[in-house]
Amino acid sequence: MIQVYGVHGSPFVRKVLIALDLKGIPFKLIPQMPFSGDAEYLKINPLGKVPTLVDGDLTLGDSKVICQYLEAAYPETPVYPQAVTDKARAHWYEDLCGGRVSELAAGIFFQRFMRPLAFNQQPDEEKVAKIIDRDLPPLLDYLESQIPAEGFVFGDFSMADLCIASPFFNASYAGYDVDPARWPALAGLIERVKALPAVHKILEKEAQVLGLS
Amino acid sequence: MIQVYGVHGSPFVRKVLIALDLKGIPFKLIPQMPFSGDAEYLKINPLGKVPTLVDGDLTLGDSKVICQYLEAAYPETPVYPQAVTDKARAHWYEDLCGGRVSELAAGIFFQRFMRPLAFNQQPDEEKVAKIIDRDLPPLLDYLESQIPAEGFVFGDFSMADLCIASPFFNASYAGYDVDPARWPALAGLIERVKALPAVHKILEKEAQVLGLS
Repeated sequence: MIQVYGVHGSPFVRKVLIALDLKGIPFKLIPQMPFSGDAEYLKINPLGKVPTLVDGDLTLGDSKVICQYLEAAYPETPVYPQAVTDKARAHWYEDLCGGRVSELAAGIFFQRFMRPLAFNQQPDEEKVAKIIDRDLPPLLDYLESQIPAEGFVFGDFSMADLCIASPFFNASYAGYDVDPARWPALAGLIERVKALPAVHKILEKEAQVLGLS
Repeated sequence: MIQVYGVHGSPFVRKVLIALDLKGIPFKLIPQMPFSGDAEYLKINPLGKVPTLVDGDLTLGDSKVICQYLEAAYPETPVYPQAVTDKARAHWYEDLCGGRVSELAAGIFFQRFMRPLAFNQQPDEEKVAKIIDRDLPPLLDYLESQIPAEGFVFGDFSMADLCIASPFFNASYAGYDVDPARWPALAGLIERVKALPAVHKILEKEAQVLGLS
């Protein structure tokens, strides 16, 4: 059976678990904290990041690589758009939102959620303000230009929608929500993705783990 | 005709140019410095990174996304391995080496090459030593474990080999070479990739642009 190393709460683990769930692929989640310094884990993922997927002889890191592998190896229920250009655009949104956008959202999450919780320290609100007022808006403007007012980016729901919305679930845990007056299409997409049963189910589990419910 | 925005010297631009060349796809290189703050460019790539590819109506950032799109849209001369698990592993090496490994190699390149050249400052050799002695070796150990003693990772040459070798071309511009005594398979692969005509040709152009030849 497929094994996924990771923990609930990581947007990257979340993405893989939702892809597996949507595809109806059975798997086992093996608890693994990122950057734990665990020498055995570093052998299979030298970055120490989560998730890592093990499927038979194949070991893969990186949620983009994993989800694209699952799509190719288990194509019955597709989770990416099928047209070549749409798929490429989906991968581009996935890279952008799993990269810089997630980094900024994680910055808010770290300051306002992890820092008080794990280090008993006040958040550095100056850093948070820089992210919210200076760094995020150009990216939100770009995403707004790519997203339809209704529905999903490629018609049916796909990983592209999840990848765009997912970093903002984590920012939302830290009290930041995309302003629906300034970025209505993006804010609407985040709500539509959140309401999907497969997404809702995972977010409920995360809320339990993170002590939010 | 396909347009690629970027400059010679970037390992990410290099990768796309080599993929286009191997596939025999005509293209036009449009000079674009990364992070130039150019507002027009930020509209097509909100990160300001290079390369960006424009193919008809499709605009894509990120060299991984671009190369995988080229493979799907122009499949005649494949540049990735074809088996699903091999292709996934190739994508994983691409992500790892285009991510953390490139970041570290770029750190050496910045200190020893760009800093004297662009800022007229001495390199911070303490930072370089940390990269070479502490940060890189575990990643080189991992890559060494994945690479055959002879030939290429998936038999025929593929983008996986180029992605693994490419960051070290830039480190090499800054006087760092992978120690062939400690990492013989990796050092050998770098040399084999460098010797390929399509790669050699681009590296010669880079040497001209960077004033190395």
